[in-house]
Amino acid sequence: MSFADLMAFQRDTEALGHIAGRLGWDQETMMPRGAAGHRAEEAGALEGVLHARRTDLRVGEWLAAAVPADEVQAAHLRHIRRDYTRHSKVPARLAQELARLTSLSQGIWAEARARGEVAHFLPTLQQIVALKREEAAALADGTNAGLYDSLLDDYEPGATAEWIGGVFGRMRPRLVALRERVLGAAAPEPLKGEFPAEQQMRIARDLATAFGYDWTRGRLDLAVHPFSSGSGNDVRITTRVSETDPFNCFYSTIHEVGHAAYEQNIDQSFLFTPLGRGVSMGVHESQSRSYENQLGRSRGFTGWLFGRMQAEGFALNLPDADSFYRAVNRVQPGFIRTEADEVHYNLHIMMRFDLERAMIAGDLQAADLEAAWNDRFMADFGVAVDKPANGMLQDVHWSVGLFGYFPTYSLGNLYAGCLVKALRADLPGLDGDLARGDATAATGWMRERLQRFGGLREPRQTVAHACGFEPDEAPLLDYLDAKFSELYRL
Amino acid sequence: MSFADLMAFQRDTEALGHIAGRLGWDQETMMPRGAAGHRAEEAGALEGVLHARRTDLRVGEWLAAAVPADEVQAAHLRHIRRDYTRHSKVPARLAQELARLTSLSQGIWAEARARGEVAHFLPTLQQIVALKREEAAALADGTNAGLYDSLLDDYEPGATAEWIGGVFGRMRPRLVALRERVLGAAAPEPLKGEFPAEQQMRIARDLATAFGYDWTRGRLDLAVHPFSSGSGNDVRITTRVSETDPFNCFYSTIHEVGHAAYEQNIDQSFLFTPLGRGVSMGVHESQSRSYENQLGRSRGFTGWLFGRMQAEGFALNLPDADSFYRAVNRVQPGFIRTEADEVHYNLHIMMRFDLERAMIAGDLQAADLEAAWNDRFMADFGVAVDKPANGMLQDVHWSVGLFGYFPTYSLGNLYAGCLVKALRADLPGLDGDLARGDATAATGWMRERLQRFGGLREPRQTVAHACGFEPDEAPLLDYLDAKFSELYRL
Repeated sequence: MSFADLMAFQRDTEALGHIAGRLGWDQETMMPRGAAGHRAEEAGALEGVLHARRTDLRVGEWLAAAVPADEVQAAHLRHIRRDYTRHSKVPARLAQELARLTSLSQGIWAEARARGEVAHFLPTLQQIVALKREEAAALADGTNAGLYDSLLDDYEPGATAEWIGGVFGRMRPRLVALRERVLGAAAPEPLKGEFPAEQQMRIARDLATAFGYDWTRGRLDLAVHPFSSGSGNDVRITTRVSETDPFNCFYSTIHEVGHAAYEQNIDQSFLFTPLGRGVSMGVHESQSRSYENQLGRSRGFTGWLFGRMQAEGFALNLPDADSFYRAVNRVQPGFIRTEADEVHYNLHIMMRFDLERAMIAGDLQAADLEAAWNDRFMADFGVAVDKPANGMLQDVHWSVGLFGYFPTYSLGNLYAGCLVKALRADLPGLDGDLARGDATAATGWMRERLQRFGGLREPRQTVAHACGFEPDEAPLLDYLDAKFSELYRL
Repeated sequence: MSFADLMAFQRDTEALGHIAGRLGWDQETMMPRGAAGHRAEEAGALEGVLHARRTDLRVGEWLAAAVPADEVQAAHLRHIRRDYTRHSKVPARLAQELARLTSLSQGIWAEARARGEVAHFLPTLQQIVALKREEAAALADGTNAGLYDSLLDDYEPGATAEWIGGVFGRMRPRLVALRERVLGAAAPEPLKGEFPAEQQMRIARDLATAFGYDWTRGRLDLAVHPFSSGSGNDVRITTRVSETDPFNCFYSTIHEVGHAAYEQNIDQSFLFTPLGRGVSMGVHESQSRSYENQLGRSRGFTGWLFGRMQAEGFALNLPDADSFYRAVNRVQPGFIRTEADEVHYNLHIMMRFDLERAMIAGDLQAADLEAAWNDRFMADFGVAVDKPANGMLQDVHWSVGLFGYFPTYSLGNLYAGCLVKALRADLPGLDGDLARGDATAATGWMRERLQRFGGLREPRQTVAHACGFEPDEAPLLDYLDAKFSELYRL
């Protein structure tokens, strides 16, 4: 009885959470600019309702009385209990203030980014950091220990800064060594030319289809910062278009299809329950990154894409599929994380991880962030940041209060390394399929082994169950070494 | 104290109501088709929250204790009291059921309409009528009297079927007489040709601008059934495009701009309060209809539009502005209400008014609606309905539970007649302005005299305040007689 009551209540809470997500999608794709303040009121009101439901005392009573009948019910209770405990620690006033502020601040960030004015964003960033620190302190039960961990736990339950710091510590030397070997070798010819937006979007749609995106339950739009949004039967993706760099559009699309496929493929019986969403950001990213990189940037698939671009009538400066593959995977220290190659990507994350930990610890003030960012970037990438849009204003995350989120991207890469290792062992014909533009078998494997389970298991266990072994960083690093050694003839 | 508490609570309720409206917009413009069931869950959950807030016992307590300090506070209390009383009469279960059903049923209606299959929609319509009758009975306090009035009151507070029946009874003979005189005269040449969608939309955007639509707080999209959505600083409009009939797109756009201008121009201090919305559907329609017809279909404005179409490079079969004006205002018995000329329009409404009253009274079953519709259409318009999309499936209203809504369109025409009579008296240079494509003075008059007041006064008083006289049907009928007598040289 308690369990049924709890689940009925939770069902509406989940639906209201979906609505909040849909408003977020609207804000970044459709909303007129002058509506920002209006939307902030709406977001704040909905957040107030959600917070009241998530901390409703009846939930505590139902949880205390509920006895799970099986593994699925136990998983439901685990999720609801964690959410209830977390949300009950955060005062409603703070939750609503954060919702209002981060709804507004996104527009301010976008303006600051467009104008190249860090100062325009700073007061807002200061407020966000202050509120997030307040939230972290509330979550950490008032002590000063584990402030960052308590934020991280929202995106990657069970992960800690210490664990991630250890993983990054082991990854870093191998990545730096690979980077140095690669940058010492002859660089491949890049793709050059003008690629009209409309034609790029046509190919982007084909790419989404090739990777199994279900168009009857989704749509593709443009956004400044590509994202996917929604779960179950309404999962929308976005991409962006640069007329001189079609790979930006293409690989953003495949990346978001990875996220979307995870949500679209969750068992329908889990919809509007806590199991009806991807289990963590890290596991989510394992899907998007494996679709984008291990599959989408493979020799086989880029061969198909080369033909598809020729069929579109693009005059390519690259003579054959091999040079195209090398151009797609060109390694080069660039400013923008989302455009980074596989060798540099995790170095971007490590930098953000250190900076945001310092901000949350109170050791780095928002006013000093730009200098800290630019110094660190020079140290890690050997290039001076030329403008804020290429530096601390490039990512949307901090503007919407996402602190503790960045490391999940690298965790996703790590998980992707493990998953594709297992997938390749099961599917010996994979490269041949991809060369025909057919990712069905690969995405089918992900669906069966991981996606359909949604939030049934904890993040690490979700990946371990799919792979058949405990995940660590070795498969990713082995994959990168092998791929780029071959590609750069090291 | 009670008043402040009440208004703070109401503010979030208003914001949540805005969100429900935004979801409705999304559903008709952006949502993937396979998401219909998903959205129904979301709409149901939000409706549950809204219903709980609108019937929250604290609202009753605050209302009982609140003493208004001025006219504005008194108006707030009047609106909140009416909503509270209405919503408290409808059981939560029924409200949520209606929200879920009418979210789903819209998709079923659209499918039935596309396929031309009434049978596909019938079971749903039966359910909707049953639920609406149940709702009406609850609103009418369990008696069987005034079922229809209790629905009507939701869209046009203070109006009754008896009053509207009286108005329609006086309008009908003059409209029928005008129709007969017009149809006996030589018909003007219609506009013919192919008008690419993209160019039509360019003109549509110019039209919206000419009528004062604020693009920084809105956007224009396509929808099967054009509508406007939102209030305050996020008011979106939609239109549709027929490549052979550009007037459909143009006048739908101007119509929706009329609605949107009302919402955009409400005093900003009223936003997120009960006064921050158009006061009734009838008054709303007075704006859309006067923008569309009295202003947009005037000789002056059509002259400007003629030039604008030529500038777009359209090869027009009409030689001059006079023949263009006559084509825009061509009177002809057509199937589709939204495409009807000004002479026939109200006859469409009278027919729906009678049919829906019979359905709500229980005198007409959904299964008999198609035959009743087609018989009545033959009697009133002298034409046999050729397919359901031109008959009972043409309008979205009943599929989303809007019974009692249709008569507000004619009430809007009546109000528009009064408003433009007063406006013309104040603005002797109007026709000259319109001939230059400048509707600023006219829309400025509407803003100052009516739009900015939002829900401050009751519907009829809102119009009376703007006009300076008590509204009735005479100005509309005089306007129609004069316009079409001149136009058809009667």
